Amino acid sequence: MTPEEFRRHGYAMIDLIADYRENIEQRGVQPTTVPGEIKAALPASPPESAEPFEQIMGDVEKLIMPGLLHWQHPSFFGFFPSNVELSSVLGDCLSTGLGVVGLSWQSSPALTEIEEVTTDWLRDMIGLSHEWSGVIQDSASTSTLVALISARERSSQYALMHDGLQDSGAPLIVYTSAHAHSSVNKAAILAGFGQNNIRTVATDERNAMSPQALAQAIEQDLAAGNRPCVVIATTGTTAAMAIDPLDAIGELTQRHGLWLHVDSAMAGAAMILPECRALWRGIENADSLVLNPHKWLGAAFDCSVYYVRDPEHLIRIMTTNPSYLQSSADGQVRNYRDWRISLGSRFRALKLWFLIREQGVSGLQARLRRDLANARWLAEQIEGSAHWKLVAAPALQTLCIRHEPPGLSGEALDKHTRNWAERLNLSGKAYVTPAILDERWMVRVSIGALGTERQHVEGLWALLQSLVIEMPSR
Amino acid sequence: MTPEEFRRHGYAMIDLIADYRENIEQRGVQPTTVPGEIKAALPASPPESAEPFEQIMGDVEKLIMPGLLHWQHPSFFGFFPSNVELSSVLGDCLSTGLGVVGLSWQSSPALTEIEEVTTDWLRDMIGLSHEWSGVIQDSASTSTLVALISARERSSQYALMHDGLQDSGAPLIVYTSAHAHSSVNKAAILAGFGQNNIRTVATDERNAMSPQALAQAIEQDLAAGNRPCVVIATTGTTAAMAIDPLDAIGELTQRHGLWLHVDSAMAGAAMILPECRALWRGIENADSLVLNPHKWLGAAFDCSVYYVRDPEHLIRIMTTNPSYLQSSADGQVRNYRDWRISLGSRFRALKLWFLIREQGVSGLQARLRRDLANARWLAEQIEGSAHWKLVAAPALQTLCIRHEPPGLSGEALDKHTRNWAERLNLSGKAYVTPAILDERWMVRVSIGALGTERQHVEGLWALLQSLVIEMPSR
Repeated sequence: MTPEEFRRHGYAMIDLIADYRENIEQRGVQPTTVPGEIKAALPASPPESAEPFEQIMGDVEKLIMPGLLHWQHPSFFGFFPSNVELSSVLGDCLSTGLGVVGLSWQSSPALTEIEEVTTDWLRDMIGLSHEWSGVIQDSASTSTLVALISARERSSQYALMHDGLQDSGAPLIVYTSAHAHSSVNKAAILAGFGQNNIRTVATDERNAMSPQALAQAIEQDLAAGNRPCVVIATTGTTAAMAIDPLDAIGELTQRHGLWLHVDSAMAGAAMILPECRALWRGIENADSLVLNPHKWLGAAFDCSVYYVRDPEHLIRIMTTNPSYLQSSADGQVRNYRDWRISLGSRFRALKLWFLIREQGVSGLQARLRRDLANARWLAEQIEGSAHWKLVAAPALQTLCIRHEPPGLSGEALDKHTRNWAERLNLSGKAYVTPAILDERWMVRVSIGALGTERQHVEGLWALLQSLVIEMPSR
Repeated sequence: MTPEEFRRHGYAMIDLIADYRENIEQRGVQPTTVPGEIKAALPASPPESAEPFEQIMGDVEKLIMPGLLHWQHPSFFGFFPSNVELSSVLGDCLSTGLGVVGLSWQSSPALTEIEEVTTDWLRDMIGLSHEWSGVIQDSASTSTLVALISARERSSQYALMHDGLQDSGAPLIVYTSAHAHSSVNKAAILAGFGQNNIRTVATDERNAMSPQALAQAIEQDLAAGNRPCVVIATTGTTAAMAIDPLDAIGELTQRHGLWLHVDSAMAGAAMILPECRALWRGIENADSLVLNPHKWLGAAFDCSVYYVRDPEHLIRIMTTNPSYLQSSADGQVRNYRDWRISLGSRFRALKLWFLIREQGVSGLQARLRRDLANARWLAEQIEGSAHWKLVAAPALQTLCIRHEPPGLSGEALDKHTRNWAERLNLSGKAYVTPAILDERWMVRVSIGALGTERQHVEGLWALLQSLVIEMPSR
């Protein structure tokens, strides 16, 4: 494609994205695609000859658009907000268009230095001390894996230099709660700890990790001759946005010399609001933490920021220094390849840099406060209505709700819950995520898509009420 | 940013990218930025209020552009071609603009099914059998890590379910060559094998792994009571594009029940040319392989395709099934979250889908053949010139060259080599990568940027000759 053709098709692409965002409310939030439908509509073999660009764009309209769940829809209350501010879209397009690659500082100095500046800015925005340094990863799953590997190596006095985790010795133990994200278990397995060496610490009535139970679990392992290694605490769990108490947990990890990793993938964004920072009191006792600006904050996916207090723990396990990457700047600069798994990287910082500058800190704060107020409003409606219930203490912008008609309980209640949630999603008018909490189905309402105003939350509430009235008799 | 503002600024961004590509030859390939220069030019704190978009774009022109190594420049002969076809830029912008997230098939059916179709297309293009299935990862480093973890688990009868790599037992061993990519060693360490359990198998005069030496190493480990686990072979090594003999290696891995992972990150693209496929004869004996369409082929970074013969090995180690991701489509569809480390993903397939369709297979083949012919031409010039030498057999589009004036050897020769390479790069007229081969510095010339025509290679050759004539006396 020549630059001139790119100009023409590029304008059309910008228009497509602008139109999509502008008119998104005309679409049903959830697609009606059935499994295999899109695959079947495409040729099994690649085209031998070039296709006209218009034909590709035709397929985008015909095949792609109807096959999407519209995460940017103002009535998207599913999973978590995965906001992509339009300014961030432009930062990301610039990254793609420039086509530069981070391998070393030398391989594009701006790529490294803008990442440094932007992660420093974000660090200040969330109220962390200057003890922390950041690196952009693809996802919190990867960041947590990196944290677990770092912990494994620190605990084993850098056994990687010798026999790795195959060193004989008492097993290294990972502590987390049943409310931790699924990626914690996955990362512990990938890092080689083994399922038997993951301790699921009990939680309290607010679904937060109990420091007493943690202390007990550590003591039991010590008594059994095992080696406690790392605690993964979560500030903002997936199901109910529960907040593990970092101050009490941090006291234990400090006392026993354990690594403390904090998964704040979703709720970390809220820390740009000073009034929310009490939620992670004790954060300075952690060794590493992850938050995802590609969730609520508005940076285009993928943009997960991993902060560490001592980058040396990253560098010791990740460093590579092949001759073709050596340069006279080494020693004076950050080489982010030593901070992450992949050698190469996109110019990922641009999408975050554009976002912060175009919105300003106050703009981002105002939007998050809007969402918190909307969540409080909906919580009040639910609390004030017969048969509707908040099944977890409302936290930030996530509500866990259930409709509990008289006489329904157990599996019949589960069936009712899943039924109305499915009907709601099938309506296309809004989208929510059913999930299990305390062994019962409930529905998560995650408020905070970019376009979600009070009217959309009011619309959801009206929809919820009409749905259960219309429900066929049980 | 409103859709209307996005339209205006988006057109400007498209123009910026089009202009950048159109006029890139007016820029020096290498930046002149000094360490810390860009960071120092930016405020230490994030802006409290929103900044006008024009101000951000002003900084792009003033700070970012002069701080880039221009990978898309036609006289970029460094590292490897990291081509970003403009059609692929548009596919990637679409992904960012739509802002959908892959968590499960349900979370955007098109995202999953286009990834399936596109990786199937690519599989056919490179001549693999239908036994293979693909998934898009961020980088070959990650793919290799995933392969090593899969191998570790298969060899240990899925110890992850029990004590992980902390199971006692004879150590699991990794085999690779000294010419393998730095990410192999890094991945083996991250996966917990330990440095002592990585065997560096000897190479032959063409820098390819010796199957005899591999056989011997395996026998030695067996005799010592160790457990041979995985061989990482490379088709297209980083320094000299050497090709490990997959047929002979595959025979050994089959005989001993080892995992065979093939790193074809760079050279895999060449397999779209039937005349090149003899280079990886025996590939069907591998368990996994990785190739990076974000290198020579032209897909925007990051787009690394990891193929496996049996996805079950991925799913067994990576599966997660929290309640909030369960859906009625499960069982009928692919859930790519079980194929990779991160739970969420961008709509990465779009950039590859756009590229293949807009170029057609024949268009991509023609471009790669152009690059191979250009490399052959330069190889002939070098072979025909006194004092210039190809220090490795020319392979595909990479040449390893040295200027060897009479009387110069050892460290003096190294100094001469690094000196002219540095002068060349500082000139801004072209960019090459010095590297060590057989303990001596040489210069890699990697031909194949999108815009590189014969005239640019001729220009490089003229530059090389003039440089060494002008060299100050030693």
